[in-house]
Amino acid sequence: MKIAVMGGDGFIGWPTSLHLSDAGHEIHILDNLSRRWIDTELGVQSLTPMDSIQERTRIWHAETGRRIHFHLIDLAKDYELLKSWLAENRPDAIIHFAEQRAAPYSMKSDRHKNYTVNNNVSATHNLLNALTELNLDAHLVHLGTMGVYGYSTVGAAIPEGYLPVGIETADGRSVSQEILYPANPGSIYHMTKCLDQLLFQFYAKNDGLRITDLHQGIVWGTHTEQTRRHAQLINRFDYDGDYGTVLNRFLIQAAIGYPLTVHGTGGQTRAFIHIQDSVRCIEIALNNPPVRGARVEIFNQMTETHRVRDLAEMIAKISGADVAWLPNPRKEAAENELIVRNDKFLELGLEPTTLESGLLAEIVDVAKKFSYRVDRSRVPAVSAWTKDIAQTINRDPEGKRLKSVS
Amino acid sequence: MKIAVMGGDGFIGWPTSLHLSDAGHEIHILDNLSRRWIDTELGVQSLTPMDSIQERTRIWHAETGRRIHFHLIDLAKDYELLKSWLAENRPDAIIHFAEQRAAPYSMKSDRHKNYTVNNNVSATHNLLNALTELNLDAHLVHLGTMGVYGYSTVGAAIPEGYLPVGIETADGRSVSQEILYPANPGSIYHMTKCLDQLLFQFYAKNDGLRITDLHQGIVWGTHTEQTRRHAQLINRFDYDGDYGTVLNRFLIQAAIGYPLTVHGTGGQTRAFIHIQDSVRCIEIALNNPPVRGARVEIFNQMTETHRVRDLAEMIAKISGADVAWLPNPRKEAAENELIVRNDKFLELGLEPTTLESGLLAEIVDVAKKFSYRVDRSRVPAVSAWTKDIAQTINRDPEGKRLKSVS
Repeated sequence: MKIAVMGGDGFIGWPTSLHLSDAGHEIHILDNLSRRWIDTELGVQSLTPMDSIQERTRIWHAETGRRIHFHLIDLAKDYELLKSWLAENRPDAIIHFAEQRAAPYSMKSDRHKNYTVNNNVSATHNLLNALTELNLDAHLVHLGTMGVYGYSTVGAAIPEGYLPVGIETADGRSVSQEILYPANPGSIYHMTKCLDQLLFQFYAKNDGLRITDLHQGIVWGTHTEQTRRHAQLINRFDYDGDYGTVLNRFLIQAAIGYPLTVHGTGGQTRAFIHIQDSVRCIEIALNNPPVRGARVEIFNQMTETHRVRDLAEMIAKISGADVAWLPNPRKEAAENELIVRNDKFLELGLEPTTLESGLLAEIVDVAKKFSYRVDRSRVPAVSAWTKDIAQTINRDPEGKRLKSVS
Repeated sequence: MKIAVMGGDGFIGWPTSLHLSDAGHEIHILDNLSRRWIDTELGVQSLTPMDSIQERTRIWHAETGRRIHFHLIDLAKDYELLKSWLAENRPDAIIHFAEQRAAPYSMKSDRHKNYTVNNNVSATHNLLNALTELNLDAHLVHLGTMGVYGYSTVGAAIPEGYLPVGIETADGRSVSQEILYPANPGSIYHMTKCLDQLLFQFYAKNDGLRITDLHQGIVWGTHTEQTRRHAQLINRFDYDGDYGTVLNRFLIQAAIGYPLTVHGTGGQTRAFIHIQDSVRCIEIALNNPPVRGARVEIFNQMTETHRVRDLAEMIAKISGADVAWLPNPRKEAAENELIVRNDKFLELGLEPTTLESGLLAEIVDVAKKFSYRVDRSRVPAVSAWTKDIAQTINRDPEGKRLKSVS
């Protein structure tokens, strides 16, 4: 297949591009390199030393003889350029990672909120609009998030996108209907993925676009089969308070002897998936497109759930690190249950990598190996969800908060 | 109250501004005048001769001694300007009409789709973002649409925003919950109002903004008590295929002896409200704000429902016009039932103006009076919902289609 990977320079985009190139597909990365610009803005960098996209693709070619093509195109801003590219190349499938993907970054300031909304909505809508305008029947696979469901439920297992409900009719009967799971996003970033869902639903209904939306859990791990092949093919690893997801932050904290920082009670239950499983899921989704005219296909792309405090304890046990309890910068329930259905990928052959089996290797092979590159001052999460919360978490200076921990 | 009317130069914005000024409020109109620019783009104009906003406000002052202030600000593009204006003026309430509001215009081309999405999402989000950033506790009243519900239901009466459903829990119990009515928009325009709903829900939950969303039916009529006071205070009246809603097009067709053009079977049931009732509803909503921390308050702002073909017959009977049956440029169900709850406004004192009592006056006082200004070529609706439909409706040239009618 000819596959366009929008955002193919990013954390999942890059290993996905390698994985699919390795499988024999013709890969075109379209990316505006915004993630690298945001590193510059924040003054942070990937823990792993990461080469330019041009250099990475050159090395991939040298190693494997396969070409990955790179095109500097901004999906959100360059609609006409995107449309011409699609018209000329007519890919069979498109994988859409081209969105700002950090919840804390999306909550940093009013400027970051606007950027996240405008960038993500425009990127997604430009893509749908161009496919429709060109009458291009490419299968669109989008990386969504478990966060569209929100984390407060009535105790029902989270289905794969569609929830069966009972509705009472005007004449008093009760009918059963499947509805898109009611959105309850917890941040501006998560909200943009809910907006995406409505865009997808409309274009699937009105224009027959074939769309798969992957509601992904928190991705952990760094290496895939392909990124291991050469030191300069390594994936990015974010550990800062904005882009570092909870597990990556714990790993790096363990590696440098910093306490594992748990926000609130740590009773938040989250869904996880290893990066290797993530790229496999994307391949499975590509191989199982919906038919034209069908509703949006939705998979839950996760393999296990854990409470944050249980994760911290698991890593503390492996590494001997301490645990530090800090105020929560997010506005969310202190504790939540989370039961998630992921039968669809399992039935299609996914064999999950478990946290239990992979964590130690991640600490040794990545976190410890590159720990000399860590900027300790960038580890704490400082983006507060509201101005009230910002006052609370900034009341104690960072040093004091961390010193008070056993 | 000090009230900011965003989009106060538009079809409902203008009579709302007059109505609230008359009631003694301090009114500030913020508008980018985009609706006038779109008239220029399309080469159409209001049936009623409409003065500049500066001239209209001058006349209002001369007639009543009351000032309506006008500020040329683009909510979607000028975030910093909007924020400064709000910081300086700190209104008690904000009425938000500042969106592209025609479904056919939103479906004209890929450029119009992008414009509608970017303009409407940015305008709404900029406003919410600025209110949060400034910690400004103004009550935000938004003009939404009945179209967020979609028109295919399971036969349940459409509630005011929130639908009670039964959900089965993981342990087999059934629990009752109220959810935001599942969105099923029928055009890009309607979809943007669904996106708005999610933005409102998030900012009400995360930041405690006080928001009322008015899901309005199709507005008909031209005059309110205030627009009648001077010829140059008259409201705009759109009759073209993009901005003219179905009833206005029938009225003008009746006035100029053009057949009433019904799309498809005319079995589409729609909700309607007179412009005078619309401005009264907005005043009622302003006087009944939600408390801080409450969920978004939602009213259905409509007073009666009719099938399109029944409306055509009603107007044909009054005026003696013929009815012409044309292919439907929209992708929608040919026939639908529509039962809508509007108890909340009725309980708060709304006394509806009925179509039956007001239609004849509208034909005589507005449509016939200004019929010399009609450009007959702009009456047909030509924006098709998909490329396939475009081919169907353009197969017969306009003249031939209309000649085939009795």
